[in-house]
Amino acid sequence: MGKRPSGHVPQEEINALLIAEARAGRLVVRLKGGDPFVFGRGGEECEALAAAGVPFAVVPGVTAAVAAPGSAGIPVTHRDYGSAFAVVTGHECDGASDLDWGALARIPTLVVLMGVRALPEITARLIAHGMGPTTPAALTASATLPHASTVLGTLATIAERAREARVEPPATLVLGEVVRVRDRLARPESQTCSAAFACQ
Amino acid sequence: MGKRPSGHVPQEEINALLIAEARAGRLVVRLKGGDPFVFGRGGEECEALAAAGVPFAVVPGVTAAVAAPGSAGIPVTHRDYGSAFAVVTGHECDGASDLDWGALARIPTLVVLMGVRALPEITARLIAHGMGPTTPAALTASATLPHASTVLGTLATIAERAREARVEPPATLVLGEVVRVRDRLARPESQTCSAAFACQ
Repeated sequence: MGKRPSGHVPQEEINALLIAEARAGRLVVRLKGGDPFVFGRGGEECEALAAAGVPFAVVPGVTAAVAAPGSAGIPVTHRDYGSAFAVVTGHECDGASDLDWGALARIPTLVVLMGVRALPEITARLIAHGMGPTTPAALTASATLPHASTVLGTLATIAERAREARVEPPATLVLGEVVRVRDRLARPESQTCSAAFACQ
Repeated sequence: MGKRPSGHVPQEEINALLIAEARAGRLVVRLKGGDPFVFGRGGEECEALAAAGVPFAVVPGVTAAVAAPGSAGIPVTHRDYGSAFAVVTGHECDGASDLDWGALARIPTLVVLMGVRALPEITARLIAHGMGPTTPAALTASATLPHASTVLGTLATIAERAREARVEPPATLVLGEVVRVRDRLARPESQTCSAAFACQ
């Protein structure tokens, strides 16, 4: 079962279906795209199942917050560059935001999921809260897919670069010195690298 | 190839072996325990390979920072509780620390990897930097293994609870309101849940 950005299948219906199928005696696999425990609603689905008395097991998966940068040649931490990272969703950035941007601006590596639409607002907010405008930035779209692409820039320029390159969601933004590692991996003979950072 | 905490195989030797085997014409798989791009040295290994002209590909994996809490019934984000999370390693906590603890103390969910030994220091530092002493805390050891276990407490009590329970590394600490989700999943009939949060 999938959800589109328009949210045409409400979470309540998904929960109800999981419970109904389980009560009908079926073994139900809820396979989610994206990590269900990272800005997914895995926690809420587990709560609904628990409240309904439906036994379940969670099998952890790969989170785009780390995998998307990794597939673009960017480790979210690195001995020389970043010893902590934080993850937020761009969905939290429209208009009023409860996020503590002052704190986020001070974390060495910041990963923003689902932030394409709010990119100008996100970058302006971080600059206003003290993150350096020259902080390296990378925006990876459709990570690990054949048409994956990465746009590079700085905190000050990445929104404009992304607009010029017509980056479409889903995309993962990484801000921090760790972005420089990608440069060190991009040898002349591997300029075509893009999908799952394969240098051949 | 594995590394022990004692670090008996230096990173330089691992890099050299990867390069030598590749140059001998072999297809080399470097399988890492733990996410190589999250406080692993995946970035450095990639740099060594690139500098040596060895083609390589990165296949992203599952990071304990999200999977260990998840396997213990704790999503690192949740609509009701936490809309951002940060990850640090306890190895950064001995003595002088370059980490911005004031900023980390303000992130809704904080995950600390490899923090068992430095737990008293980590929790004291966060309290000194303004994180509430009653912030819910969970320490999951040997996540997803048959002998996995989770110790619960608060920022103020988790170090003492862990000492009493004789928690051994590796373990993952989660601090934040998201820890409360686990309570909602722990129905009376599922008190034996521990390994991969299986409620049956």
